[in-house]
Amino acid sequence: MKMDPTAIQVEFHFDFGSPNAYLSHRVIPDIEQRTGVKFQYVPVLIGGVFRATNNVSPMVAFEGIKNKNEYQQLETERFLRKHGITNYQRNPFFPINTLQLMRGAIAASRIGVATEYIDSVYRAMWEDKLDMGQTDIVLTALKNASFSIAEIVEACSDPAIKEQLINNTEQSVARGNFGSPTFFVGTEMFFGKDKLVDVEDEITRQLNE
Amino acid sequence: MKMDPTAIQVEFHFDFGSPNAYLSHRVIPDIEQRTGVKFQYVPVLIGGVFRATNNVSPMVAFEGIKNKNEYQQLETERFLRKHGITNYQRNPFFPINTLQLMRGAIAASRIGVATEYIDSVYRAMWEDKLDMGQTDIVLTALKNASFSIAEIVEACSDPAIKEQLINNTEQSVARGNFGSPTFFVGTEMFFGKDKLVDVEDEITRQLNE
Repeated sequence: MKMDPTAIQVEFHFDFGSPNAYLSHRVIPDIEQRTGVKFQYVPVLIGGVFRATNNVSPMVAFEGIKNKNEYQQLETERFLRKHGITNYQRNPFFPINTLQLMRGAIAASRIGVATEYIDSVYRAMWEDKLDMGQTDIVLTALKNASFSIAEIVEACSDPAIKEQLINNTEQSVARGNFGSPTFFVGTEMFFGKDKLVDVEDEITRQLNE
Repeated sequence: MKMDPTAIQVEFHFDFGSPNAYLSHRVIPDIEQRTGVKFQYVPVLIGGVFRATNNVSPMVAFEGIKNKNEYQQLETERFLRKHGITNYQRNPFFPINTLQLMRGAIAASRIGVATEYIDSVYRAMWEDKLDMGQTDIVLTALKNASFSIAEIVEACSDPAIKEQLINNTEQSVARGNFGSPTFFVGTEMFFGKDKLVDVEDEITRQLNE
């Protein structure tokens, strides 16, 4: 390895509402450990990405296509088995409006509790399958967290927070994003949880440049 | 390796009209060499698969989605680079009606020249970028081949050939096919050229069972 891992910019453009982003989130720590890089979590609003690109979620895109959803389900099971993930649960309230949660991710970052917040929200959504589009459920789910959810909710009323989520989303689309999960290693973009293998290969390549 | 590679059933359900099937065809020999298995090429009509599953080609599905086709193009370039493929050409006549060519694949198999025929047609389509939907162009393109294209064309008038292509396609859809390329390792289905890595992993797994 010729390059300092901290010199490599690796970004995960995420939205809590995407199950494939959650599944990526579960695998990222392994890649960080193997390569020494740290993924930067960039909150983007997947609904905003879809509107800007005229895209739709896989659930909508694959509706009515015979065999397609069954295959996606099979691939999810293969991914879970490959990575030893045993506690993933489909969220029955999907799709959930994640606007407040994503603003919260930006607020949590400013407060310095982004890692804890992201992990807690992902767990509530895709392990405890809570209806995290409801503020009262969010407050209850995170009341015993190591951070103050009340402080985050309050911070979210700052127009600058709202503005940053919009900017993040617009800039991400300008760089090529059209769906979730999206990764960047420097300027190289990768889409989909199955591409985490290629993300890691690209990190390794840049480390040895 | 505990199992005889010839005991493992590996199928490639292909149509000449799919560029991703062509790209898979270029990588399959490497997998065969590494694992010792032999891929069985099963002719299916992708148009028939689409009709039966209510699916469309990626070109149609991604039309009008910002960033999506650019990313697909980038992934194709990455695939070419990874596998050292330098002579792939987009066919300007795409999409081509492949009905006669696919019937030809079944006829070629009966005559015992399937390998040569498949390789020649794929080359004409995706390296020499010929309009292989036109019979006269097919006859010219394959006139110096090691097999008799005239014999294959004649064999195609046999209703049993037409029937088998329909049966192949229907059975493939019944087993889960919705697009191209589709692979089976035993009963395990894989979709897409990027899944060839998983196809090889599954072959290796079954070899060591």
